[in-house]
Amino acid sequence: MPLAKIDVPAHATQEFMRAVGDAIYKAMVDIASVPKSDRFQVFTRHRADEIVYPAEGYLGIQYTSDLVIIQITWVAGRSTDVKKAFYRRIADDIHAATGLRKEDIWISLVESQREDWSFGNGEMQYAPLA
Amino acid sequence: MPLAKIDVPAHATQEFMRAVGDAIYKAMVDIASVPKSDRFQVFTRHRADEIVYPAEGYLGIQYTSDLVIIQITWVAGRSTDVKKAFYRRIADDIHAATGLRKEDIWISLVESQREDWSFGNGEMQYAPLA
Amino acid sequence: MPLAKIDVPAHATQEFMRAVGDAIYKAMVDIASVPKSDRFQVFTRHRADEIVYPAEGYLGIQYTSDLVIIQITWVAGRSTDVKKAFYRRIADDIHAATGLRKEDIWISLVESQREDWSFGNGEMQYAPLA
Repeated sequence: MPLAKIDVPAHATQEFMRAVGDAIYKAMVDIASVPKSDRFQVFTRHRADEIVYPAEGYLGIQYTSDLVIIQITWVAGRSTDVKKAFYRRIADDIHAATGLRKEDIWISLVESQREDWSFGNGEMQYAPLA
Repeated sequence: MPLAKIDVPAHATQEFMRAVGDAIYKAMVDIASVPKSDRFQVFTRHRADEIVYPAEGYLGIQYTSDLVIIQITWVAGRSTDVKKAFYRRIADDIHAATGLRKEDIWISLVESQREDWSFGNGEMQYAPLA
Repeated sequence: MPLAKIDVPAHATQEFMRAVGDAIYKAMVDIASVPKSDRFQVFTRHRADEIVYPAEGYLGIQYTSDLVIIQITWVAGRSTDVKKAFYRRIADDIHAATGLRKEDIWISLVESQREDWSFGNGEMQYAPLA
């Protein structure tokens, strides 16, 4: 169910994107109760002028042109603690796998409901909770 | 009001995208009470390594590299039954018009409120409900 | 915190995108209580067949192939009046800076919660409200 949209610099290689995608998927399954094989990710490569961040940083964090912007839409219901652990794991694992600075891993979550998904075949696979 | 963002493979033709967009728009108007002419769609073409799906499938559905990911943001309020019919119609019509496998049509809905839209001119055209 | 995703025509220059981004950021800070330096924007350039609008217009507004689609995800809580002023300011300032017709400035807002953001480092920087 989660749909992860991931904006990366134009120079991102297939190997880099696979490592980023692996980290996001594993954190979902290990920490956020996402079912196995529920892996849907859309990467978009961007020229340098297309990903904008504050040159002066924000909240004490300095960014570089390697910045990766991850926006995940999923079903509402994860606790704040789960979300904290989820962010931590994604940053740790992407950094470990690719060397990308943790400061350059940026995450936004958007929540929807169970009935807001069709995984193919024109069906609503997740029944709404009664 | 709905904004449909549609991720397609790099080889998608203009004719293919028009057929996909037509199907989404018609399903909105016919089934989901979207006003006529309220058609705003953004397609993004992606290289093969940019659209990621589970090779083993999910929920019994097998995907191919033709996978089309549709994410629609619209005003909350449609019922579960309407959403079910909406998914069905989109898959049926895209398949009929383009031959795309229904398994490769993936839909995510995101909901917002009436005041969350400006259709141009710097105005909030939809008054919030009292 | 806000993440602005901005879809622009393929011919958009760096200068045009900077002016659009400046206008959005300034309206956020001046009108919508967004903190200074909280500027995260992702532009995507699109071929003409990728941005679709109604040829007949909608709600009396006529669009052209210069149409810019702005979708902003931010923390819920702004009032309807703030949103109205926010739309107005963005359209006014983009028009003033670039000459883009105000009709061709289209905005969609999506709301999330304070805990739905990581600004880097794998941390949840915004504590949820008690």
